[in-house]
Amino acid sequence: MKSVSVGIVGASGYSGEELVRLLLNHPHAELTTVTSRQYAGQTLAQVFPRFAHFPKARAIRFTESKPELVAKTAQVVFLALPHGVAAEYAVPLLEQGCQVIDLSADFRLKSPAVYQEFYGHEHPAPDLLAKSVYGLPEVYREQIRTASLVASPGCYPTSILLPTLPLIRAGLINPNSIIADSMSGVSGAGRKAEIDYLFCECNESVRPYGVPKHRHLSEIEQELAVAAGSPVVIQFTPHLIPVNRGILTTLYLAPAKHFSTADEAAALNKAIAETYAKTYADEPFVRVLEGKALPDTKNVVGTAVCEFGWRLDPRTGRLVVMSAIDNVVKGASGQAVHSMNLICGYPETAGLL
Amino acid sequence: MKSVSVGIVGASGYSGEELVRLLLNHPHAELTTVTSRQYAGQTLAQVFPRFAHFPKARAIRFTESKPELVAKTAQVVFLALPHGVAAEYAVPLLEQGCQVIDLSADFRLKSPAVYQEFYGHEHPAPDLLAKSVYGLPEVYREQIRTASLVASPGCYPTSILLPTLPLIRAGLINPNSIIADSMSGVSGAGRKAEIDYLFCECNESVRPYGVPKHRHLSEIEQELAVAAGSPVVIQFTPHLIPVNRGILTTLYLAPAKHFSTADEAAALNKAIAETYAKTYADEPFVRVLEGKALPDTKNVVGTAVCEFGWRLDPRTGRLVVMSAIDNVVKGASGQAVHSMNLICGYPETAGLL
Amino acid sequence: MKSVSVGIVGASGYSGEELVRLLLNHPHAELTTVTSRQYAGQTLAQVFPRFAHFPKARAIRFTESKPELVAKTAQVVFLALPHGVAAEYAVPLLEQGCQVIDLSADFRLKSPAVYQEFYGHEHPAPDLLAKSVYGLPEVYREQIRTASLVASPGCYPTSILLPTLPLIRAGLINPNSIIADSMSGVSGAGRKAEIDYLFCECNESVRPYGVPKHRHLSEIEQELAVAAGSPVVIQFTPHLIPVNRGILTTLYLAPAKHFSTADEAAALNKAIAETYAKTYADEPFVRVLEGKALPDTKNVVGTAVCEFGWRLDPRTGRLVVMSAIDNVVKGASGQAVHSMNLICGYPETAGLL
Amino acid sequence: MKSVSVGIVGASGYSGEELVRLLLNHPHAELTTVTSRQYAGQTLAQVFPRFAHFPKARAIRFTESKPELVAKTAQVVFLALPHGVAAEYAVPLLEQGCQVIDLSADFRLKSPAVYQEFYGHEHPAPDLLAKSVYGLPEVYREQIRTASLVASPGCYPTSILLPTLPLIRAGLINPNSIIADSMSGVSGAGRKAEIDYLFCECNESVRPYGVPKHRHLSEIEQELAVAAGSPVVIQFTPHLIPVNRGILTTLYLAPAKHFSTADEAAALNKAIAETYAKTYADEPFVRVLEGKALPDTKNVVGTAVCEFGWRLDPRTGRLVVMSAIDNVVKGASGQAVHSMNLICGYPETAGLL
Repeated sequence: MKSVSVGIVGASGYSGEELVRLLLNHPHAELTTVTSRQYAGQTLAQVFPRFAHFPKARAIRFTESKPELVAKTAQVVFLALPHGVAAEYAVPLLEQGCQVIDLSADFRLKSPAVYQEFYGHEHPAPDLLAKSVYGLPEVYREQIRTASLVASPGCYPTSILLPTLPLIRAGLINPNSIIADSMSGVSGAGRKAEIDYLFCECNESVRPYGVPKHRHLSEIEQELAVAAGSPVVIQFTPHLIPVNRGILTTLYLAPAKHFSTADEAAALNKAIAETYAKTYADEPFVRVLEGKALPDTKNVVGTAVCEFGWRLDPRTGRLVVMSAIDNVVKGASGQAVHSMNLICGYPETAGLL
Repeated sequence: MKSVSVGIVGASGYSGEELVRLLLNHPHAELTTVTSRQYAGQTLAQVFPRFAHFPKARAIRFTESKPELVAKTAQVVFLALPHGVAAEYAVPLLEQGCQVIDLSADFRLKSPAVYQEFYGHEHPAPDLLAKSVYGLPEVYREQIRTASLVASPGCYPTSILLPTLPLIRAGLINPNSIIADSMSGVSGAGRKAEIDYLFCECNESVRPYGVPKHRHLSEIEQELAVAAGSPVVIQFTPHLIPVNRGILTTLYLAPAKHFSTADEAAALNKAIAETYAKTYADEPFVRVLEGKALPDTKNVVGTAVCEFGWRLDPRTGRLVVMSAIDNVVKGASGQAVHSMNLICGYPETAGLL
Repeated sequence: MKSVSVGIVGASGYSGEELVRLLLNHPHAELTTVTSRQYAGQTLAQVFPRFAHFPKARAIRFTESKPELVAKTAQVVFLALPHGVAAEYAVPLLEQGCQVIDLSADFRLKSPAVYQEFYGHEHPAPDLLAKSVYGLPEVYREQIRTASLVASPGCYPTSILLPTLPLIRAGLINPNSIIADSMSGVSGAGRKAEIDYLFCECNESVRPYGVPKHRHLSEIEQELAVAAGSPVVIQFTPHLIPVNRGILTTLYLAPAKHFSTADEAAALNKAIAETYAKTYADEPFVRVLEGKALPDTKNVVGTAVCEFGWRLDPRTGRLVVMSAIDNVVKGASGQAVHSMNLICGYPETAGLL
Repeated sequence: MKSVSVGIVGASGYSGEELVRLLLNHPHAELTTVTSRQYAGQTLAQVFPRFAHFPKARAIRFTESKPELVAKTAQVVFLALPHGVAAEYAVPLLEQGCQVIDLSADFRLKSPAVYQEFYGHEHPAPDLLAKSVYGLPEVYREQIRTASLVASPGCYPTSILLPTLPLIRAGLINPNSIIADSMSGVSGAGRKAEIDYLFCECNESVRPYGVPKHRHLSEIEQELAVAAGSPVVIQFTPHLIPVNRGILTTLYLAPAKHFSTADEAAALNKAIAETYAKTYADEPFVRVLEGKALPDTKNVVGTAVCEFGWRLDPRTGRLVVMSAIDNVVKGASGQAVHSMNLICGYPETAGLL
């Protein structure tokens, strides 16, 4: 299989570091370029000592983040940059013929107005929004294969969309009833020197934040609306918990059709199971839990898997769905590599098992 | 102020240990007796080395858990025993004239049938249910003062009831709309040698459990129903997170009256603020957060304080309330000592600041 | 007992916060003033929400750090400032007649040359070095009582000096044989926004640092030399481990007199036990472990206690001593309050149990 | 390359689980058999949900631990059993012609008397001790290639031997001067339901244990003696710290030749660097740190790498060496797979990068 040259722009944060890990282990990708203003001149091994046993990590040096130079050495370029900044790089890279997989929020939304509402500034490259593909392979597999610009989904959205979209499409739940309560590991906050994310501020602490209008709502509601065929508004509360990695989302959903008897419950349970089976039976990175199993982030950390389970509550008439992902892998870099595999025609699980 | 002699039956778990800590520091309580089958004969200092700088901890030895002996040396007796077992001790201790503060679930429910439904066995002493007082001082202060049997509330219920009861009483929310999503530290699982609670099984892990019908629902719904004047059914999902202590509960509530305009939102916000102020302004252990503050378990760990804040979400029309407690202090031993202070006529905050 | 007015200069770090906690709970100290450039104007409760249930924390506002203003409202002033800066405040405060308890390294060393060697700049107030008292109450109790300037010891030095000084004074060990291997919680690094101390950089990580010449060596060797009556050089390696608080130090010591037979070992063991008993039997904050007990930081966290145990190793002829403290309490703020109690004539344990 | 059939006896603990992970990802090994008394009948995916995305994990079921059955389906058998029990399985498996890689301590010691001294019972199969090879590939590579019984080293020994053996062989240090101070993650204690290893007992805690005569001393001293050509006795103190994985060992060593001038120090430094380079330049899993770098367990967790750095201390004349490994990978299962690669003639890094 033909190998592809790959670059990472902004490889100094946690997503960038995980991209490095995945690409160093990838059977077909050839990591050629990593950029970072802060680390330019240093080798990958110096900046991330954990990779020093890879000869390539001792050879590759960080360069300045110049698109024209990156385009010369890389066919596929991952952008691991803050939102607002990513767009500046995407435009010239696309012009040079690269395929761009952006991990920021810059190209996830179809509407520049919604972008401005949630991100607080005008969209820097609105023309590209129509061109970009939302990089959720389970939903947009075919479009990703031929995309030149992939907007890789956010971590919370991934944990929320995978369990809800099939139910909405099947008409089993009321999309506007969704309440998503999520807990995220601290890597989700990025590798930023801020007091709030110091060890002693996070350890032995749990706290909600971004209530009630977190930025990720915009892409979640956009994708739910596509599935529902009409606008959707949901409730979402993220919390910060003292783990490095992992998101656990508990979803409270109202079935579209009220159930009350045991028979109705059994029928609904069956419909849910069949819907999930039909959607995900062949998906390599979605695991629908069976029997008494409930998700646990420790079962997905380090993998590109999203696992989830559900329970009907006959007392309240609600459906409770619980999902777990690794926010840095399935929620960021692993999903981005999945998109690269699709673009390049590699096996979908290449480098991801 | 006259001191009171105090005993703890079953002092070898986390609640028992915390009772020891609070009582060794209490200005008026005289800890005379601690019992434990497992540790009988050893001193408090041997079993809990962290207390060894208290002379009393080097002097007091664990004894066998015999009610007739405990009653001879203690006027107030805390039961820190598993449910089902606590009742066996409460009966003879009450007969001997002790005041009993039970930290188990045995006397929290008024209905033996509900007890059996949720705890899986017949209630061992149903006659006492009418006599016991639910030990939530903010609600049952006056009844606790004269109680001989206090059923100290569970940890989750405490974190859920304090923020919701005033709103229900004021008619501001629909009680049957309540969804409570809670995260608890591992001490909540008790000091039990089980694989599930090993360090390596809990660290770097988040997981739901007891879905959808956790035992604590029974007492939560009982107390909500008292406030509402009619039966209440709620949704509740507990999660285990890798902290020693702390519960963070996020509550999703439907306002009784729909709001849509900014004016309606402001009016509702004001009504909530006034209701909380009226209820809790003078409460020493309830902290209603103001401004942009959100709760954080690290701000309450080690204290008997419940702190909470709220946000109206104009997009969904819901009210989101977030509360934090230390599950072992406000959620167990500290609240039990608060009851003792009421029973003995001590200042409510004695030994708890 | 007459209360004393107290100020804290630089109360925004972990030592400052712990001083606030201890002083809010102190029966005789009246906290009047807290200063912080960063937080000037805000209340204690706003900056440290965990204290918000203390009425005083809602009343006291941070002020600018101006010595002349602090001196007007505080008789005893704690300096919780970086080294080099503390001296700037100590001079004017002493001139205004305050008693100053400095938690920085500025006044711990008697020799300005050693200060310059280890701290990299000229000592800012060398005249005061002769005046200052090293604030280790177990050693300098009487001098502290009458001191106007107390240099409160570092955290590592406290964990190393308490177990070794009595053995050196008794001639039982060779002082130049000391190897001290220490592990510290992350609060020891201070409340600084640096990448190295982010949650994800410290969690699931252990690492040595400051090898082989950590700054604390200077004060450790100074005090060991006082006990030995001649210069001492030791080996010291600190490590950072993922706990909020706590230092565990393991000391490797060569007995002054070689032992080989079981009788010699027993005699040495007895001599050590007697030396420790003689020195520490009446000390409220030193706990010499007996029997099979070994120290554990969780037994001292939150307290001003140093606990330690020892083992003779007949295979190697060495004495291994292991000690544990809370680096923020006994290693900083608690020990400083102990000094305040001595200065003010309060019971030594006031506010510290 | 020809694949090999592989079995794991006792696959329910942390080492067993890690073997499963490594073997599921191994390009040439075919995991056919996993045994566990406790889990017999369940699939790998049921017992270890984190592997459920591997089709093989959903297919393989745990069987009873019967050697004759294991031998029918596996050419290479890993024993992940408690010491004392492993020998019972090794004997019949060897008789059936399997190659056995034992992760317990049963075959690490050459002397049955030393085994009895340190493990408290007679050796169950002393005849096999001469036959077994100590599975440290960096030392016994050639012997492992042809071994039928490999005794895979303990975790602490691995972290101590790799940095010290070359220095001893080169005559650069005095072997009897070695002091090894180690910190281990809690997985080192195994997956045992004991109070001491509960989350709340380990989190926010650091503690020494097994002082002064830990069992691992026996194999450490045996291998040091081989390098030194004469008996060696060392000092070793293990500590338990709240991480899942990782061992950090700090070694205090006396250079064989005293150094005092800067030139002597430089010469010694050069000799050490050259010795390490000569020994480890081509080793895929040993990383000698350069420049200012110091080891950090987070750089080796999940890998089979041992990284270490050193500092000469001109003040004390000692050499301080600090090493880091993942106790479950390089310290157990990864090193065992390395041995399998050698036995089977696979590339040494197969399945380990």
